[in-house]
Amino acid sequence: MINMKKLAGEKACEEIKEGMVVGLGTGSTTFYAIEELGRRVRAGLKIQAVATSNNTEALAKERGIPLISLNDVQDIDLTIDGADEVDEALNGIKGGGGALFREKMVALHSKRNLWVIDETKLVSKLGSFPLPVEVLPFGYKQVEKELTKLNFQPRLRKALKSEASFVTDNGNYIFDLSLKKIKNTEQLAQKLDSISGILEHGLFLQVASELLIGKKDGTIEKRGLGPFREEAKH
Amino acid sequence: MINMKKLAGEKACEEIKEGMVVGLGTGSTTFYAIEELGRRVRAGLKIQAVATSNNTEALAKERGIPLISLNDVQDIDLTIDGADEVDEALNGIKGGGGALFREKMVALHSKRNLWVIDETKLVSKLGSFPLPVEVLPFGYKQVEKELTKLNFQPRLRKALKSEASFVTDNGNYIFDLSLKKIKNTEQLAQKLDSISGILEHGLFLQVASELLIGKKDGTIEKRGLGPFREEAKH
Repeated sequence: MINMKKLAGEKACEEIKEGMVVGLGTGSTTFYAIEELGRRVRAGLKIQAVATSNNTEALAKERGIPLISLNDVQDIDLTIDGADEVDEALNGIKGGGGALFREKMVALHSKRNLWVIDETKLVSKLGSFPLPVEVLPFGYKQVEKELTKLNFQPRLRKALKSEASFVTDNGNYIFDLSLKKIKNTEQLAQKLDSISGILEHGLFLQVASELLIGKKDGTIEKRGLGPFREEAKH
Repeated sequence: MINMKKLAGEKACEEIKEGMVVGLGTGSTTFYAIEELGRRVRAGLKIQAVATSNNTEALAKERGIPLISLNDVQDIDLTIDGADEVDEALNGIKGGGGALFREKMVALHSKRNLWVIDETKLVSKLGSFPLPVEVLPFGYKQVEKELTKLNFQPRLRKALKSEASFVTDNGNYIFDLSLKKIKNTEQLAQKLDSISGILEHGLFLQVASELLIGKKDGTIEKRGLGPFREEAKH
C-alpha cells in the first residue's frame, strides 16, 4: 500500500529553498515533511525552522534541523502544516493535535502556508470535525457553561489513554465543540475571540495559501489561492 | 491626613452580607477592603471568596478568609475591585497591577461589580492611562510589530526595579498601549480580541455596576448603573 502521507509530506518539502525560514507544523503528515527536510539539511541545505509545538521542536532537533524562535524572525517564508478539515476557499479547522495556538501564530506570520492533507479532509462546509478551543485553567468551568449556553456542546479533551485532562504546550485545556455545519465562520470566529478565557480557536480563516492533497489513486493534487488569498489578507 | 483608599475600601465591605460568594480584586484600595473583610470574618461573618491574583490569594489566606476557586462557584454575588480609569458610563481601564485576566474572568461571572476608586480616576474619555494587554511569550515580538503598525505604541512592561520583563500570574507578558483618547471602545476591544497572541486586554466595558468614589474633601460618593447595566448585559 502506498503511504500517501509520506508521499505528500515529502512532496511539500520540494517547496523549501536555500536560505528560507520555514515553519514546521505538528502532526503525522508534517512528520514526514520534517524527516525529509532533515535529510536535505544533512545533505547541505541551509534553512532555519520555527517549530509549532514541543513535539515538533524535539523531532527537528533530533534530525539536525536548525531552529529559531518565532520572536527572532522577520517573517517566515513558508510554513508546512496539516489540517483536520478544509473547505473550497481553503479555510480550515486545525487543532486535532492540540497545537492550534502555536500553529496559528506561526501561520499568521508566514508569507505562504502550504497545508498537506489527504482527500478525506476536504469538505463543502466546515464543522463536522469538532472545533478545538484552548482555554486557560483559571475559570475554565465558567467558559464551559458559556459555551454550553451557546449550544456549542463543549467536551473537555482528555489526555491519550488517560482520565486526566489534556494539557497544551502552553499549560492550558482544550474544549472540542460539536458544531455540525458552521453557517458563518467569520461570525463564529468573532464570537469565540470575544469570550474571555479562550486563548485561541481552531478556525483558520484566510490562512492557507496552498494545498497538497494526497489521493487514494496515488496522485497528489496541488491547489492554490496564491494571489487571491494575498489580496484578501490586505 | 485622611486615608481615602482605606475609608472607601472599608465602606465597600459594608455591601458584603452573610453567605455571599465575594470576588476580591487586586491593588491598594482592595487591600483595605480585604483587611476589613478579614476582621469581619474573624468576628463570625460567613462568606467565601474568589481571588483575582496570587497576591490577593496570599493576603486573603493570611487574613483567614475562606477561598474557593472560580471553577467551583455557580456565580459570584459581588466583586470589589479597583480601576485605573473610569468614564461616565462606568466603562473602565484595568490592569495597571497586571492582574487584568483574572480580574476580568471574575468580574464577568459576578452579579454585581463594585469598583472603588479615588476621584482622579474619573475621566470623560478612556485612554490617558496606558491600556494593558496580556500576551503569550510565544511570538510576543510579532504581536508587538502588529500593535506598532496599528499605531498603538506598545511598551513591554518591566518588573519593578528591574530590567527583566514583568510576568503575570499566568506566565505571560504585558504591553502597555499609549492610546491617548479612545474614540470607539467597543471597536478597539473587538480589534484587540481578534489579534492572535493576545490573551486579554484591560478594557472593561459594561462590567462595573457600581462605583465608590473617594473624594479629596473626605466624602465618599456612590454611583450606580444597577438595573441599566443589567439590561445592557442581557
